[in-house]
Amino acid sequence: MTKTKHLTQVFIAAALLMSVGLIVDALKTAHSETDSDWGPKWNAKGELILPSDYHTWIFLGSPLTPHSLNEGKAGFPEYHNVYIHPVAYQIYKKTGEFPEGTILLKELQLTLSGTNEDGSRVEASGRGFFPAQLNGIDISVKDSERFKDTNGWGFFNFGHHAPPYAETAAVAPKEACAGCHIANADNMVFKNFYAPILDAK
Amino acid sequence: MTKTKHLTQVFIAAALLMSVGLIVDALKTAHSETDSDWGPKWNAKGELILPSDYHTWIFLGSPLTPHSLNEGKAGFPEYHNVYIHPVAYQIYKKTGEFPEGTILLKELQLTLSGTNEDGSRVEASGRGFFPAQLNGIDISVKDSERFKDTNGWGFFNFGHHAPPYAETAAVAPKEACAGCHIANADNMVFKNFYAPILDAK
Repeated sequence: MTKTKHLTQVFIAAALLMSVGLIVDALKTAHSETDSDWGPKWNAKGELILPSDYHTWIFLGSPLTPHSLNEGKAGFPEYHNVYIHPVAYQIYKKTGEFPEGTILLKELQLTLSGTNEDGSRVEASGRGFFPAQLNGIDISVKDSERFKDTNGWGFFNFGHHAPPYAETAAVAPKEACAGCHIANADNMVFKNFYAPILDAK
Repeated sequence: MTKTKHLTQVFIAAALLMSVGLIVDALKTAHSETDSDWGPKWNAKGELILPSDYHTWIFLGSPLTPHSLNEGKAGFPEYHNVYIHPVAYQIYKKTGEFPEGTILLKELQLTLSGTNEDGSRVEASGRGFFPAQLNGIDISVKDSERFKDTNGWGFFNFGHHAPPYAETAAVAPKEACAGCHIANADNMVFKNFYAPILDAK
């Protein structure tokens, strides 16, 4: 065997080692994108940045409190479509607990205009309520340290109107959201409305 | 350099080559799972197999036709939570058309029992309707060849009751589902109810 052949083999082995290293790095990056980069994003002012991909998140349920049934004064008119981030959902399914960094996102959605006093109308499938214009976003974030004064959850309003919504939001005052969740919700989340899907086998 | 060292180097190089090959194969497999294996699955009898992961699909909207507003006779009582497969959704977002193999899945969900004649009740967020027990699944599949007699969509019932649902379903007779969609829906899909989320920017 010549010295040249020997060097060639060493070079090939080194190149292969580097390739494996690069591939392993690439896999690590892909892993971290799905496993750890999923939590809330904050800007320099400490405001929450609105996630851009929430329509691909996990739907948990849609309480419906139409204006028509609330003398036109529903706090959250119409459908509340509630979503959870997919990674938080996967962790919840394993542990039964919302992990730190869980985002629950509520998008409000108006109903098609009613033809009855209760706001309902008739479509091919019967009398009821039917989804229409999207109309606002509220978010709650679990962070036991950052929001220790409100039982570990912070609340954010991105606007109660048609899109586009605000791109960032400061945490809402305790009396605006957290107070009602502290008084009425099971451990800060109205989980009984979401349990049928969240806890489905 | 000894012959043993030489063989060791050749062995290491071969092992590294195999490792790279295995990693490349693994990446190819991961790719094909997300890119082409997303359509409907059929058993040997030509029945549709119920997807197992539909709670992670894209939520499109939830028409609500409660029994209480339909003299106890709603064809699809309560919430109809409608989902689309994520890959079909991504293709729709690019093309504006449901691709061949699109699955639209409707899971029925009862409401918490009402305290008013219209079936509504009062919770912290107001008077309205609130999600409760899951209660059935219907699926429609776009396949222009297989379902050419019903405008390219087939309809399947997996049970109108609490889970577990049927694991497979034969296509429903034309008069059971397709007829109503042919008569009432825009191109077979009640798209006006889903457009606010489906077509959101």
